[in-house]
Amino acid sequence: MSDIKIADRIKGTEKNVWVEFTELVSQENPVDLGRGFPDFNPPVHVKNALITAATDDSPFIHQYARVKGHKRLVTALAELYSPIINHNIDWATEILITNGAYGALHTTIQGLINPGDEVIIIEPFFDCYSPMVKVAGGTPIFIPLRKTENTGDVFKSSDFTLDYNEFSSKITKKTKALIFNNPNNPIGKVYSLEECQQIAKLCKENNIIVICDEVYEWITYDDKKHIKMASLPDMFNRTLTLGSAGKSFSVTGWKIGWIIGPVHLMKPCVVVHQNVTNSCSTPMQEAIAIAMETDLGKLRRDDSDCYFKSLAKEMQPKRDLAEEFLKETGFHPVRPDGGYFILVNYTDVMKKSCVTLDNSNEANDYKFIKWMIRNKKISAIPVTVFYSEGHKHLGQNYIRFCFMKVKESFLYKKRR
Amino acid sequence: MSDIKIADRIKGTEKNVWVEFTELVSQENPVDLGRGFPDFNPPVHVKNALITAATDDSPFIHQYARVKGHKRLVTALAELYSPIINHNIDWATEILITNGAYGALHTTIQGLINPGDEVIIIEPFFDCYSPMVKVAGGTPIFIPLRKTENTGDVFKSSDFTLDYNEFSSKITKKTKALIFNNPNNPIGKVYSLEECQQIAKLCKENNIIVICDEVYEWITYDDKKHIKMASLPDMFNRTLTLGSAGKSFSVTGWKIGWIIGPVHLMKPCVVVHQNVTNSCSTPMQEAIAIAMETDLGKLRRDDSDCYFKSLAKEMQPKRDLAEEFLKETGFHPVRPDGGYFILVNYTDVMKKSCVTLDNSNEANDYKFIKWMIRNKKISAIPVTVFYSEGHKHLGQNYIRFCFMKVKESFLYKKRR
Ligand SMILES: Cc1ncc(COP(=O)(O)O)c(C=O)c1O
Ligand SMILES: Cc1ncc(COP(=O)(O)O)c(C=O)c1O
Repeated sequence: MSDIKIADRIKGTEKNVWVEFTELVSQENPVDLGRGFPDFNPPVHVKNALITAATDDSPFIHQYARVKGHKRLVTALAELYSPIINHNIDWATEILITNGAYGALHTTIQGLINPGDEVIIIEPFFDCYSPMVKVAGGTPIFIPLRKTENTGDVFKSSDFTLDYNEFSSKITKKTKALIFNNPNNPIGKVYSLEECQQIAKLCKENNIIVICDEVYEWITYDDKKHIKMASLPDMFNRTLTLGSAGKSFSVTGWKIGWIIGPVHLMKPCVVVHQNVTNSCSTPMQEAIAIAMETDLGKLRRDDSDCYFKSLAKEMQPKRDLAEEFLKETGFHPVRPDGGYFILVNYTDVMKKSCVTLDNSNEANDYKFIKWMIRNKKISAIPVTVFYSEGHKHLGQNYIRFCFMKVKESFLYKKRR
Repeated sequence: MSDIKIADRIKGTEKNVWVEFTELVSQENPVDLGRGFPDFNPPVHVKNALITAATDDSPFIHQYARVKGHKRLVTALAELYSPIINHNIDWATEILITNGAYGALHTTIQGLINPGDEVIIIEPFFDCYSPMVKVAGGTPIFIPLRKTENTGDVFKSSDFTLDYNEFSSKITKKTKALIFNNPNNPIGKVYSLEECQQIAKLCKENNIIVICDEVYEWITYDDKKHIKMASLPDMFNRTLTLGSAGKSFSVTGWKIGWIIGPVHLMKPCVVVHQNVTNSCSTPMQEAIAIAMETDLGKLRRDDSDCYFKSLAKEMQPKRDLAEEFLKETGFHPVRPDGGYFILVNYTDVMKKSCVTLDNSNEANDYKFIKWMIRNKKISAIPVTVFYSEGHKHLGQNYIRFCFMKVKESFLYKKRR
């Protein structure tokens, strides 16, 4: 049986940082400041929503959901997002529920990208974008955010900007789509209105579809406002907006995501979905619908307790603590404007701790983290995984910490 | 934006019977004897397992699971299936948890099938097999079960058999895999040991991988024994066995499935999974693990209350009732040996009820069902969807009823 050839489409996509670090964490048992999920309980109303769904008396809660998504959930999503994107979203045709935003990304890319199509990806990027485009036969075109002169004394994610001339120069006749992650993972950049407008302009002029990954949409700091690409003039028609219940409600394990967009772009997504999974978990969808209805009610009453508002307020002290603690430890952090993550330059810590890295082929950030996991019992994620082959040098001095953790996890080293 | 080209790979796969009939059912509100799920509550211990998972105190129940599957679930699966297939299944490397068996089928096909590969599909087949193979660039090769001379006075699913010469004649150098659905949907055929051995022999001689869809593995009637292909001599190494928690525990909406097989075939599946969904719902996996542990305990004690045993016993009277009732109504049923479904020849009922079908291009079984939904408020599924283009005539006089329903649903027409 050794002569069985596996499918060519997946060649080169075998390595996966999440598989690798999940195994490593389970072997070495460090404090996990790497992977992007909270180490504390989800909000009470979210947890209760799952209990409510699980105890529901209707037998149909346990059976196949509508293919495009459980009606109660798509209705809640239409109500939530219609005013935000300034378009009356049709729950029946303009929303598709997927297995996490991860599933939404796969569905979108499989539905739209043909072999030979070019897809622009801004670096650093959530690592799956590139293999997903490649598996579809597309060519990822990478444009790194460029570090601008740092004017203040703290380094910020907004110091990393897009060079629009560079962006323009990468557009060809084959450019089909842009994958736009805002707020960005791993760097925590939240694009300003002006930045979004510039990008929108380039996409409209060049007939480019925008795949907007907005899983951290509710998590922005210092009153930074998250701009939805789909809300800008004439953009709804060329934009697919991807969201995640896991990230919105701090329950990453629930794996329910969605795609919202115009019918002509939704149709191919639905066709892919039909053949990939057909429908998503009904109890999970019901639970998220219940949680969302609670928060929609609070949003209407402008209740500060609404989780879509309170999440970022809860997170901000975590970010500040992480930054302070990492600085004290000798790392040089890049202060994020949004999301769960903080990048730090680790090279000074490495020197101070007299860490010598072996001379294997692995990138330095991998080596440093493996040292840190084994010797300091703290894990992080290497930043080179968020860069393309040709640009890995831009990331090799950084590692990514997740600060969606209880204070005690973050101060672990101090405590000892 | 009308000039945006969707991905070519999905062309020709747009039509989906489940989308179409789900919409029709929600519009016309018939008694749904079409789609394959129970209209009654799941077993108490299964429902309670979800409540237990939902109320668990560990925060990690709500966060990302291990990529290949939640450890508690893969451990339970290894324990359940190792003795059945007579191989010590390694939970860490030989099992992958997917979004339903549907997701398992997609993962397997994307992981193994290259453009140009031929994949044998036995007709009638679960309808997604063909588009899934086509999306992967493969060529489905269809071999219909042939009706043998009926010796008794009832027509049975075992009267439909595979012609091994026909099977052999379809094998070429390009034949990569066989998709083998046992018990079969829609016809309810349960392959005998001898039939399985014959098929295994052909696969071994011709180096063919077997993708075994066994979602109805626990549902066989009249003491028919379900044979696992992977349990036959020298077959584990070339077999991927696909199962469904939804079908095994009568909770189709939970959408958790699995693939079990040798590492060399599992590896490409894991790579696909990484880029399609990355991990599956943790609470759903935990709940299924809990339910499975309960039934494993009962299985060990040979407790007749074990759901893997009791399910078929509960179903058998439903099958018998369905057959009797359908016969009384004037349909000619094919008695199934396994699964949820019963095929009937509807042509006599059509004549008796003086139904005239319009002369549109639609297949007759579609037309008859639409008439039945509108005029009798009962739905079923057309059988031509389970046949390839060239063989639709073999199915056009049949429709499929699901009898995984409460008695009252099935006797609906009588009651009125
Ligand atoms: C930018 C980004 N997109 C998508 C995802 C996946 O979302 P989900 O967990 O809903 O599949 C993540 C998860 O980390 C992410 O960071
Ligand atoms: C033969 C067969 N395979 C797979 C599936 C899908 O299983 P799941 O609901 O676990 O995705 C079905 C569902 O009807 C089926 O009949």
